[in-house]
Order: sequence, then structure tokens, then C-alpha cells
Amino acid sequence: MEQKSKTNGIFIGSKPLMNYVTGVIVQFNSTEAKEVIIKSRGKFTSKAIDIAELTKRKFSKEGIKTKDIKIGSEEFVTKEGKKVTVSTLEITMVRD
Amino acid sequence: MEQKSKTNGIFIGSKPLMNYVTGVIVQFNSTEAKEVIIKSRGKFTSKAIDIAELTKRKFSKEGIKTKDIKIGSEEFVTKEGKKVTVSTLEITMVRD
Repeated sequence: MEQKSKTNGIFIGSKPLMNYVTGVIVQFNSTEAKEVIIKSRGKFTSKAIDIAELTKRKFSKEGIKTKDIKIGSEEFVTKEGKKVTVSTLEITMVRD
Repeated sequence: MEQKSKTNGIFIGSKPLMNYVTGVIVQFNSTEAKEVIIKSRGKFTSKAIDIAELTKRKFSKEGIKTKDIKIGSEEFVTKEGKKVTVSTLEITMVRD
């Protein structure tokens, strides 16, 4: 049997908020993950915080909480050849 | 002489990004602050991350860096009497 990673990630985009909350819970329940990392960039960083807080409030009884928060920057080049810097946010959720 | 607080805060709103970056630096330079906390709520949390990252990139030579990041939730009642929950983000910057 293939060995599963102990850390899973979910990348936040434009889907409804609850899709991602469900996504986090599914990753905790369906895999061997001890941690799920909510990853986001740019304007989606606010949404990532909402998702982490909502997941925590709704599933604190299941022992799910925030473990670590990291911010950073990423550079990339747009289709027009312009160099752009975007902020990133990673929130690591754990289940005790 | 009045004793100054060793921690200052700056609350992020709708002013231009650079106003807040300057605000952080002014607090480090004009006060005895060892730490400056960038505080934000709701949609402004993304902007707070941009401000922290930009301050770090521009002033890393002066020893300014991110020390701590906290997320949370606040409840408040709107003028219409509706209960609303909003996410909060506090980024603590320090100068070595």
C-alpha cells in the first residue's frame, strides 16, 4: 500500500467559502493527514482567514485548531511581461 | 516625564498602502516602541499582509521583521441589528 503524506494542502480560490471549510474537514477525515494547510495568495488571503476561523468555530469540538500562520511574498511575471509581487498566507490547521 | 508604551499599534483602513508602511516606520523611529502591531479586520486583512511584507522588504536592513501573527474573530451588531462575525489579523513587527 502506498504511503500517504501526513500533511495535506488546500488552495483557496473563488469557490464559495463553505466548499473550502468542507474541503479541510474531508482532508482530515478521509486521509491520514495530521495537518491541513490552507494556502492563499493576494486578495484570497482574507478569505483564507475566514475559512480557518469558521472551521475552528464549527469543529473545535473535534479538536481542530490553528497551529501555525506564515506570511510571505511571491514574485511572478504576468502575461504582459510585468513583474508583480503578491503576498501569500499559509494557515496550518491541526486536529488533536 | 510620562512613560511611553513599548508596543504601538496601527489600524489598517482605506488609506493608500504606503501611508501605513510609513506609519509603521514612524512609530519605530519616533517612539520607544520595540514592537508595532499591524491590526486589521475583514477585507483589510489582505492589505495588512501586504503592508507587513512591504515594510519587511523595504526595511529589512534596519532589522525590521515579522515576529508574530494572530488570527481571530470578532462579533458585532450592525446598525440594522444584524449580528455579524468578522475575521481579525494582528501582525507584530519588531526591530532588532
